Amino acid sequence: MSAFTGTQSANETNAQQMLTTVALNLWKQTIERADKTFSALTDEQLQKQIAPGKNRVGYVWGHLIAANDYMIQLLGIGERVHPELQQTFVTNPDDRANQLPSAEQLKSYWNEVNAKVLAGISAFSPEEWIGRHNAVSEEDFAKEPTRNRFAVLLSRIYHLGYHTGQVITVTK
Amino acid sequence: MSAFTGTQSANETNAQQMLTTVALNLWKQTIERADKTFSALTDEQLQKQIAPGKNRVGYVWGHLIAANDYMIQLLGIGERVHPELQQTFVTNPDDRANQLPSAEQLKSYWNEVNAKVLAGISAFSPEEWIGRHNAVSEEDFAKEPTRNRFAVLLSRIYHLGYHTGQVITVTK
Repeated sequence: MSAFTGTQSANETNAQQMLTTVALNLWKQTIERADKTFSALTDEQLQKQIAPGKNRVGYVWGHLIAANDYMIQLLGIGERVHPELQQTFVTNPDDRANQLPSAEQLKSYWNEVNAKVLAGISAFSPEEWIGRHNAVSEEDFAKEPTRNRFAVLLSRIYHLGYHTGQVITVTK
Repeated sequence: MSAFTGTQSANETNAQQMLTTVALNLWKQTIERADKTFSALTDEQLQKQIAPGKNRVGYVWGHLIAANDYMIQLLGIGERVHPELQQTFVTNPDDRANQLPSAEQLKSYWNEVNAKVLAGISAFSPEEWIGRHNAVSEEDFAKEPTRNRFAVLLSRIYHLGYHTGQVITVTK
């Protein structure tokens, strides 16, 4: 019985680790694909709109940087690297009267933020993944345990797909 | 010792189930969001291109239906519902000389395919999620165990985001 339980437990640990490994792998691929899409763009291409009257490509990139930066706080990895981007690229809609940061600047923010996110999420155990994220109170989390770190990661993968698709359409 | 192992085992089972539940919840939300984006479109809107010279909106919808339909086979849920869509919407690029199915037709395929996918994936245990998908051989799977059903689900979530973002940009 004890040996059986031991075996079962090892399998279960493997299952948990496999599930989180798969998500982590997809995160890396997702970032790589977005990186190929954005990092080669010129300042001029960043001015292009994803459709007439819609966000500029450079706004979308800034938006993804700010969203990934917010993950650092949300997942309890540490302090945000560029909290100043939140206002311009998340709270406010794109305003063509605002000058965008240069391609070089955005690339530097992008790399900096993604490195910090990746270092943090690579270290999480399965138990940490199903733990509470920082935008939900302990009381609410007790009622809705699906509001955990893993849910943040998966929804950010979707979000990256959403915006990468928009930008590839007008830059390729 | 036995009691402790038992408790640990229960926690691990909970962790696995929580990880797969979170992914399943996001799948449902992702389909719902795509449904809101596509199901209200008219035949005329389906003719619109996502950018000049790019895929028509109706092609993108057909492409997502075919991709979800293929999941039925890939995940071992059963037989594909509309294998005839593969050629037009996956193998071949969009060709404006081809007439698209009507909005009503696409909506019917979409609902039919998604219902079968959801019924199938709702029944998977964590062990089934980390099992081999049908596009990888047993031999290759032994070397690369991350090529499992869970990886298919997560990459399809990304893929749905990618195309939903493109379509929302030109239809909203």
